[in-house]
Amino acid sequence: MSQFIVLGWHWLVDFSECSNIPTDPEVLERIIVTAANLAGATVVKSCFHKFSPYGLSGVVVIAESHLAVHTWPEHRAVCLDLFSCSNKIDAQAAITFVADQLKAGNVVVREERRQVPGSNGLRDAD
Amino acid sequence: MSQFIVLGWHWLVDFSECSNIPTDPEVLERIIVTAANLAGATVVKSCFHKFSPYGLSGVVVIAESHLAVHTWPEHRAVCLDLFSCSNKIDAQAAITFVADQLKAGNVVVREERRQVPGSNGLRDAD
Repeated sequence: MSQFIVLGWHWLVDFSECSNIPTDPEVLERIIVTAANLAGATVVKSCFHKFSPYGLSGVVVIAESHLAVHTWPEHRAVCLDLFSCSNKIDAQAAITFVADQLKAGNVVVREERRQVPGSNGLRDAD
Repeated sequence: MSQFIVLGWHWLVDFSECSNIPTDPEVLERIIVTAANLAGATVVKSCFHKFSPYGLSGVVVIAESHLAVHTWPEHRAVCLDLFSCSNKIDAQAAITFVADQLKAGNVVVREERRQVPGSNGLRDAD
């Protein structure tokens, strides 16, 4: 039986039929940082960018790993990623908040475990 | 038959048995930015952070979406994400380069499509 060391949990969220996608990167940043705080994460730093002619991208480093968001206003769609190395993060609270802010009509969530082969016997870092 | 609008492709890469994990965030940033360039991506901005007592996190906004990286030196492991909205990005080139730099003994790659229901008939953004 294979053993794994679980490094974290990664939620891939695809929002569609969104009727309130921000066009201002600062507005989107506030939404994502608030979502991170609601999940219980600790925000470390972030970068948000506005593309031409439209579309925003943002990435947030949290103590527990990261969030990332990208908007496709032409498709009324937004993709969100939440990667947490802590099992105490309330990803659902973050996802629900973002869905509400975007007024998303449809939300698809995939949860992936990030892991590597190994066990507690794995030797320490070099 | 369901139709989807493909927003992008997302590679989740878990490297293990790494014997050369950087401890300097600037070194890791150079590796990830180089990887992005090798893949043909356009780097926009990035944030990298060093945690205490160890571990680095970094996120890079690219014109095509983002890369993210986290290190677990205590487990000789690194997780990398490459999300691209362009099908011209050579993710394998980026992954191979990072694996070589980390001297990773094992690499597991998962590819996820990011998509939302819809078709070309989807109405334009609000």
